[in-house]
Amino acid sequence: MMTIPINPYIYKTYEVKQKDVLEIMQTFQNQQKSWNDGDLEGFMNGYWQSDSLKFIGKNGITFGYDATLENYKKSYPDVATMGILKFDILSIQQLDKKHVFVIGKWHLKREEKEDLEGHFTLIWEKINKKWVIIADHSS
Amino acid sequence: MMTIPINPYIYKTYEVKQKDVLEIMQTFQNQQKSWNDGDLEGFMNGYWQSDSLKFIGKNGITFGYDATLENYKKSYPDVATMGILKFDILSIQQLDKKHVFVIGKWHLKREEKEDLEGHFTLIWEKINKKWVIIADHSS
Repeated sequence: MMTIPINPYIYKTYEVKQKDVLEIMQTFQNQQKSWNDGDLEGFMNGYWQSDSLKFIGKNGITFGYDATLENYKKSYPDVATMGILKFDILSIQQLDKKHVFVIGKWHLKREEKEDLEGHFTLIWEKINKKWVIIADHSS
Repeated sequence: MMTIPINPYIYKTYEVKQKDVLEIMQTFQNQQKSWNDGDLEGFMNGYWQSDSLKFIGKNGITFGYDATLENYKKSYPDVATMGILKFDILSIQQLDKKHVFVIGKWHLKREEKEDLEGHFTLIWEKINKKWVIIADHSS
Protein backbone atom coordinates (compact mmCIF):
# COMPACT_ATOMS: atom_id res chain seq x y z
CA MET A 1 0.00 0.00 0.00
CA MET A 2 1.30 3.43 -0.94
CA THR A 3 1.43 5.68 2.08
CA ILE A 4 3.93 8.28 0.90
CA PRO A 5 2.06 11.51 0.16
CA ILE A 6 2.68 12.79 -3.34
CA ASN A 7 1.35 15.82 -5.11
CA PRO A 8 -0.18 14.51 -8.35
CA TYR A 9 -0.34 18.01 -9.82
CA ILE A 10 3.41 18.41 -9.71
CA TYR A 11 4.51 15.15 -11.24
CA LYS A 12 1.80 15.10 -13.87
CA THR A 13 3.02 18.37 -15.33
CA TYR A 14 6.22 16.65 -16.38
CA GLU A 15 4.53 13.72 -18.08
CA VAL A 16 6.42 10.99 -16.32
CA LYS A 17 4.97 7.64 -17.33
CA GLN A 18 2.62 6.34 -14.66
CA LYS A 19 4.45 2.97 -14.70
CA ASP A 20 7.79 4.64 -13.93
CA VAL A 21 6.28 6.81 -11.18
CA LEU A 22 4.76 3.75 -9.54
CA GLU A 23 8.06 1.84 -9.65
CA ILE A 24 9.96 4.77 -8.14
CA MET A 25 7.31 5.44 -5.49
CA GLN A 26 7.30 1.74 -4.60
CA THR A 27 11.07 1.89 -4.12
CA PHE A 28 10.68 4.90 -1.79
CA GLN A 29 8.07 2.91 0.09
CA ASN A 30 10.41 -0.09 0.41
CA GLN A 31 13.27 2.16 1.52
CA GLN A 32 11.09 3.73 4.21
CA LYS A 33 10.04 0.30 5.47
CA SER A 34 13.62 -1.06 5.53
CA TRP A 35 14.88 2.01 7.39
CA ASN A 36 12.10 1.72 9.95
CA ASP A 37 12.97 -1.96 10.43
CA GLY A 38 16.57 -0.90 11.19
CA ASP A 39 17.73 -2.55 7.95
CA LEU A 40 20.27 -0.25 6.25
CA GLU A 41 21.24 -2.85 3.61
CA GLY A 42 17.57 -3.11 2.65
CA PHE A 43 17.29 0.67 2.56
CA MET A 44 20.26 0.77 0.16
CA ASN A 45 18.36 -1.40 -2.36
CA GLY A 46 17.10 1.78 -4.00
CA TYR A 47 20.66 2.82 -4.89
CA TRP A 48 22.77 1.84 -7.89
CA GLN A 49 25.15 -0.88 -6.70
CA SER A 50 28.21 0.69 -8.31
CA ASP A 51 31.44 2.47 -7.49
CA SER A 52 30.05 5.36 -9.56
CA LEU A 53 27.13 6.07 -7.22
CA LYS A 54 27.44 9.65 -5.94
CA PHE A 55 26.23 10.80 -2.54
CA ILE A 56 26.50 14.44 -1.49
CA GLY A 57 25.74 15.15 2.15
CA LYS A 58 27.04 16.98 5.18
CA ASN A 59 30.38 15.13 4.82
CA GLY A 60 30.81 16.36 1.24
CA ILE A 61 30.91 13.97 -1.69
CA THR A 62 31.11 10.19 -1.38
CA PHE A 63 31.70 7.92 -4.36
CA GLY A 64 30.38 4.38 -4.48
CA TYR A 65 27.71 2.14 -2.98
CA ASP A 66 29.97 0.57 -0.34
CA ALA A 67 31.30 3.90 0.96
CA THR A 68 27.76 5.31 1.06
CA LEU A 69 26.52 2.33 3.09
CA GLU A 70 29.50 2.68 5.45
CA ASN A 71 28.63 6.37 5.99
CA TYR A 72 25.04 5.48 6.80
CA LYS A 73 26.24 2.83 9.29
CA LYS A 74 28.56 5.34 10.98
CA SER A 75 25.92 8.09 11.14
CA TYR A 76 23.09 5.77 12.24
CA PRO A 77 24.66 3.05 14.44
CA ASP A 78 21.39 1.94 16.10
CA VAL A 79 17.61 2.10 15.73
CA ALA A 80 17.32 4.92 18.27
CA THR A 81 19.54 7.09 16.08
CA MET A 82 17.76 5.98 12.90
CA GLY A 83 14.31 6.82 14.24
CA ILE A 84 11.26 6.64 12.01
CA LEU A 85 11.83 7.85 8.44
CA LYS A 86 9.11 9.61 6.49
CA PHE A 87 9.55 10.74 2.87
CA ASP A 88 7.48 13.49 1.29
CA ILE A 89 7.85 13.63 -2.49
CA LEU A 90 7.58 17.16 -3.91
CA SER A 91 8.44 16.74 -7.60
CA ILE A 92 9.05 13.93 -10.07
CA GLN A 93 10.42 15.15 -13.40
CA GLN A 94 11.44 13.06 -16.37
CA LEU A 95 14.63 14.38 -17.98
CA ASP A 96 14.74 11.78 -20.77
CA LYS A 97 13.74 8.14 -21.27
CA LYS A 98 16.38 6.90 -18.87
CA HIS A 99 16.58 9.67 -16.24
CA VAL A 100 14.13 10.99 -13.67
CA PHE A 101 14.83 13.86 -11.25
CA VAL A 102 13.08 13.75 -7.86
CA ILE A 103 12.87 16.41 -5.14
CA GLY A 104 11.61 15.52 -1.69
CA LYS A 105 11.77 16.00 2.04
CA TRP A 106 12.97 13.51 4.63
CA HIS A 107 12.07 13.51 8.31
CA LEU A 108 13.42 11.33 11.12
CA LYS A 109 11.17 11.14 14.17
CA ARG A 110 13.23 10.08 17.16
CA GLU A 111 12.40 9.36 20.79
CA GLU A 112 15.67 9.88 22.64
CA LYS A 113 17.26 12.42 20.32
CA GLU A 114 15.98 15.44 18.46
CA ASP A 115 14.18 14.93 15.16
CA LEU A 116 16.17 15.52 11.97
CA GLU A 117 14.87 16.70 8.62
CA GLY A 118 15.94 18.13 5.32
CA HIS A 119 15.56 17.99 1.56
CA PHE A 120 16.95 15.61 -1.03
CA THR A 121 17.38 15.72 -4.78
CA LEU A 122 17.88 12.43 -6.59
CA ILE A 123 18.79 11.40 -10.10
CA TRP A 124 17.26 8.05 -11.01
CA GLU A 125 18.48 6.05 -13.97
CA LYS A 126 16.91 3.03 -15.62
CA ILE A 127 19.66 0.41 -15.59
CA ASN A 128 18.97 -3.19 -16.65
CA LYS A 129 15.23 -2.41 -16.75
CA LYS A 130 15.23 -1.22 -13.12
CA TRP A 131 15.06 2.37 -11.80
CA VAL A 132 17.92 3.07 -9.35
CA ILE A 133 19.31 6.20 -7.68
CA ILE A 134 22.64 7.17 -9.30
CA ALA A 135 23.10 10.48 -7.42
CA ASP A 136 21.71 11.67 -4.07
CA HIS A 137 22.17 15.14 -2.58
CA SER A 138 20.70 15.23 0.92
CA SER A 139 20.87 18.34 3.08
CA MET B 1 40.62 33.13 -19.11
CA MET B 2 39.53 30.00 -17.23
CA THR B 3 40.58 30.16 -13.59
CA ILE B 4 38.15 27.66 -12.09
CA PRO B 5 40.07 24.51 -11.17
CA ILE B 6 38.61 21.37 -12.73
CA ASN B 7 39.70 17.80 -12.54
CA PRO B 8 40.03 16.66 -16.16
CA TYR B 9 40.16 13.01 -15.10
CA ILE B 10 36.67 13.15 -13.63
CA TYR B 11 34.81 14.85 -16.43
CA LYS B 12 36.56 12.95 -19.19
CA THR B 13 35.34 9.64 -17.81
CA TYR B 14 31.78 10.64 -18.64
CA GLU B 15 32.49 11.62 -22.22
CA VAL B 16 30.90 15.05 -22.08
CA LYS B 17 31.59 16.85 -25.33
CA GLN B 18 34.48 19.28 -24.96
CA LYS B 19 32.37 22.04 -26.52
CA ASP B 20 29.62 21.58 -23.91
CA VAL B 21 32.12 21.45 -21.05
CA LEU B 22 33.71 24.68 -22.24
CA GLU B 23 30.35 26.45 -22.49
CA ILE B 24 29.31 25.32 -19.00
CA MET B 25 32.72 26.17 -17.49
CA GLN B 26 32.58 29.59 -19.15
CA THR B 27 29.17 30.18 -17.56
CA PHE B 28 30.57 29.27 -14.14
CA GLN B 29 33.40 31.70 -14.82
CA ASN B 30 30.95 34.48 -15.74
CA GLN B 31 28.83 33.75 -12.67
CA GLN B 32 31.88 33.96 -10.43
CA LYS B 33 32.89 37.29 -11.97
CA SER B 34 29.37 38.77 -11.69
CA TRP B 35 29.09 37.71 -8.05
CA ASN B 36 32.47 39.20 -7.23
CA ASP B 37 31.37 42.46 -8.93
CA GLY B 38 28.32 42.51 -6.63
CA ASP B 39 26.06 41.89 -9.64
CA LEU B 40 23.39 39.33 -8.65
CA GLU B 41 21.39 39.79 -11.89
CA GLY B 42 24.54 39.00 -13.85
CA PHE B 43 25.19 35.98 -11.64
CA MET B 44 21.66 34.74 -12.41
CA ASN B 45 22.46 34.63 -16.15
CA GLY B 46 23.50 31.00 -15.72
CA TYR B 47 19.98 30.04 -14.65
CA TRP B 48 16.96 29.15 -16.77
CA GLN B 49 14.77 32.27 -16.90
CA SER B 50 11.55 30.39 -16.15
CA ASP B 51 8.94 29.88 -13.45
CA SER B 52 9.94 26.20 -13.57
CA LEU B 53 13.50 26.78 -12.34
CA LYS B 54 13.99 24.85 -9.08
CA PHE B 55 16.29 25.95 -6.28
CA ILE B 56 16.76 23.82 -3.17
CA GLY B 57 18.65 25.46 -0.33
CA LYS B 58 18.54 26.09 3.37
CA ASN B 59 15.07 27.67 2.97
CA GLY B 60 13.71 24.53 1.31
CA ILE B 61 12.48 24.54 -2.27
CA THR B 62 11.96 27.69 -4.34
CA PHE B 63 10.24 27.64 -7.74
CA GLY B 64 11.09 30.16 -10.43
CA TYR B 65 13.80 32.54 -11.56
CA ASP B 66 12.30 35.65 -9.95
CA ALA B 67 11.79 34.04 -6.53
CA THR B 68 15.33 32.62 -6.66
CA LEU B 69 16.79 36.05 -7.44
CA GLU B 70 14.74 37.58 -4.59
CA ASN B 71 16.11 34.97 -2.17
CA TYR B 72 19.69 35.76 -3.23
CA LYS B 73 19.00 39.49 -2.73
CA LYS B 74 17.60 38.87 0.75
CA SER B 75 20.43 36.56 1.78
CA TYR B 76 23.20 38.71 0.26
CA PRO B 77 22.10 42.37 0.63
CA ASP B 78 25.58 43.91 0.14
CA VAL B 79 29.05 43.13 -1.17
CA ALA B 80 30.41 42.51 2.34
CA THR B 81 27.87 39.70 2.78
CA MET B 82 28.47 38.39 -0.74
CA GLY B 83 32.24 38.19 -0.30
CA ILE B 84 34.42 36.60 -2.94
CA LEU B 85 32.95 33.50 -4.58
CA LYS B 86 35.10 30.60 -5.70
CA PHE B 87 33.71 27.54 -7.47
CA ASP B 88 35.50 24.20 -7.52
CA ILE B 89 34.02 21.77 -10.05
CA LEU B 90 34.24 18.12 -8.95
CA SER B 91 32.25 16.24 -11.60
CA ILE B 92 30.60 16.93 -14.95
CA GLN B 93 28.45 14.06 -16.18
CA GLN B 94 26.35 13.93 -19.32
CA LEU B 95 22.97 12.25 -18.69
CA ASP B 96 21.75 12.55 -22.27
CA LYS B 97 22.14 14.94 -25.22
CA LYS B 98 20.23 17.69 -23.45
CA HIS B 99 21.14 17.21 -19.77
CA VAL B 100 24.38 17.52 -17.84
CA PHE B 101 24.77 16.89 -14.11
CA VAL B 102 27.45 18.89 -12.26
CA ILE B 103 28.77 18.52 -8.71
CA GLY B 104 30.91 21.22 -7.16
CA LYS B 105 31.96 23.20 -4.12
CA TRP B 106 31.33 26.88 -3.44
CA HIS B 107 33.29 29.06 -1.07
CA LEU B 108 32.63 32.65 0.00
CA LYS B 109 35.66 34.44 1.40
CA ARG B 110 34.50 37.38 3.50
CA GLU B 111 36.33 40.11 5.42
CA GLU B 112 33.84 41.21 8.07
CA LYS B 113 31.92 37.97 8.48
CA GLU B 114 32.90 34.33 8.65
CA ASP B 115 33.53 32.47 5.39
CA LEU B 116 30.75 30.25 4.07
CA GLU B 117 31.08 27.10 1.99
CA GLY B 118 29.22 24.06 0.82
CA HIS B 119 28.43 21.78 -2.07
CA PHE B 120 26.07 22.15 -5.00
CA THR B 121 24.53 19.76 -7.50
CA LEU B 122 23.15 21.23 -10.71
CA ILE B 123 21.11 19.94 -13.60
CA TRP B 124 21.91 21.80 -16.81
CA GLU B 125 19.63 21.63 -19.83
CA LYS B 126 20.29 22.78 -23.38
CA ILE B 127 17.39 25.11 -24.15
CA ASN B 128 17.33 27.16 -27.37
CA LYS B 129 20.92 26.10 -28.08
CA LYS B 130 22.17 27.43 -24.73
CA TRP B 131 23.12 25.47 -21.59
CA VAL B 132 21.24 26.75 -18.52
CA ILE B 133 20.78 25.53 -14.95
CA ILE B 134 17.24 24.14 -14.50
CA ALA B 135 17.75 22.81 -10.94
CA ASP B 136 20.21 23.82 -8.21
CA HIS B 137 20.60 22.13 -4.83
CA SER B 138 23.07 24.07 -2.70
CA SER B 139 23.92 23.05 0.84
